[in-house]
Amino acid sequence: METLKEIQDFFHKGYLEYRPNLTVDCAIFGYHGGELQLLLVKNKVFTKWCLPGGYIRKDENLDQAAARITAERSGISNLFLKQFKTFGDPGRNSPRSVDEEQLFKLTGMKINEPGWLAGETASIGYYAITDVVNAKPKADYLSSECQWFPVSKLPLLGFDHNEMVNEALSAMRMNLYHFPIGKNLLPPKFTLKEIKHFYEVMSGKTLNASNFPNKLIALGLIVKLDEKRNIGAHRSPAYYRFDEDSYEKALDEGLVLA
Amino acid sequence: METLKEIQDFFHKGYLEYRPNLTVDCAIFGYHGGELQLLLVKNKVFTKWCLPGGYIRKDENLDQAAARITAERSGISNLFLKQFKTFGDPGRNSPRSVDEEQLFKLTGMKINEPGWLAGETASIGYYAITDVVNAKPKADYLSSECQWFPVSKLPLLGFDHNEMVNEALSAMRMNLYHFPIGKNLLPPKFTLKEIKHFYEVMSGKTLNASNFPNKLIALGLIVKLDEKRNIGAHRSPAYYRFDEDSYEKALDEGLVLA
Repeated sequence: METLKEIQDFFHKGYLEYRPNLTVDCAIFGYHGGELQLLLVKNKVFTKWCLPGGYIRKDENLDQAAARITAERSGISNLFLKQFKTFGDPGRNSPRSVDEEQLFKLTGMKINEPGWLAGETASIGYYAITDVVNAKPKADYLSSECQWFPVSKLPLLGFDHNEMVNEALSAMRMNLYHFPIGKNLLPPKFTLKEIKHFYEVMSGKTLNASNFPNKLIALGLIVKLDEKRNIGAHRSPAYYRFDEDSYEKALDEGLVLA
Repeated sequence: METLKEIQDFFHKGYLEYRPNLTVDCAIFGYHGGELQLLLVKNKVFTKWCLPGGYIRKDENLDQAAARITAERSGISNLFLKQFKTFGDPGRNSPRSVDEEQLFKLTGMKINEPGWLAGETASIGYYAITDVVNAKPKADYLSSECQWFPVSKLPLLGFDHNEMVNEALSAMRMNLYHFPIGKNLLPPKFTLKEIKHFYEVMSGKTLNASNFPNKLIALGLIVKLDEKRNIGAHRSPAYYRFDEDSYEKALDEGLVLA
């Protein structure tokens, strides 16, 4: 939504285009410089930083809604994207996280005004993984800021979004064992040390992170190249790359890395 | 819902008690005799067998709704229960799966009649695991039958419920690597052969199923007893039992079995 007219149409007549009482929220994780980051949005009508999210258009499915929302905020399409959990505690969309003054200023609406946005709203959580360098975080008319935060230093988020982030991290870390990741996050050629470090950052632990690359080699998902990184005598580690076919197959069918 | 009056109240005034456009559907898996089974319901107003499901009361959270629905149909409370995915393709709650004649007979309503049940409805999928012996499948006023089917021989289900079952199986089989199961499914004392067979049935493969018990022993989740099953000379396998504390801790924190 880019203009005031679009915002006001959304608040007053959005039910014509969107499903009521159901949203998608996206934990977009960014891998950069050995740190895991998270993309947050400061929405003008919310009092706290939140996950990027939005309502689902009537003509799209849930995955399409999540892909649209992550692409709008991160500037990247075709992210690795997985649904992880739906949140629906009564009272989760508490008006405490809404800035009443801003809401009225921007939309002419009051909190708890009857309308298509009233009532309990469940939210379907998706997580995505991208590299920070290629992403272009973008605020829209309704958000004043959109930026990366280190996962280890998140602010207090609005609504139940801190719980969502914790659940997204747990789900992502469980999925590390069952889906290959990293093809768009690591350089096309990488050393074993680099991919081990990548798994350390993603899994949040140093212990056993080398099991991942070892298992990836054993399963043929990463293959050794004839080329070495030249960093001096006796210190020339071999390069590896992902095997495209095995990677796509494993993304589709799942695997067990441990 | 036990009486005609309750059913009619639900169809006409259910919005007072339940959230609109959002349901819970439950894949209740039953372990018995070396076979994995699934509990299905023949609802009088649906044309095909379906997963047990229902709307969410306004005063309950999603887990509570799933626990209520699984307990009502299986007769067992406190099942191992996990949310696995939400389904929301446009058109998924197609009237093709509704028996128009029965609907009118039971409720006085027509398909596509405006009301709180109209419009796209997303459904949150949960799976549960129980033993078949202690379960007491129970139909209600709106369902004519409720019974177990072998997972390997399921009928064509209504709506998108076959897809739900496939996703539930995938999620359950991934979770086998991260949560202990089996405490209420195996006898209190069991042999390694029995627990290996249990994991074969749950995972749907014989390959590597013995990794599970080995890892459970290594992590202290199952412990060897001083007692053996006496089935003749040279054939007396040791008994094992689950360690209560490690089991509960692992259920809470997750683990990696592989």
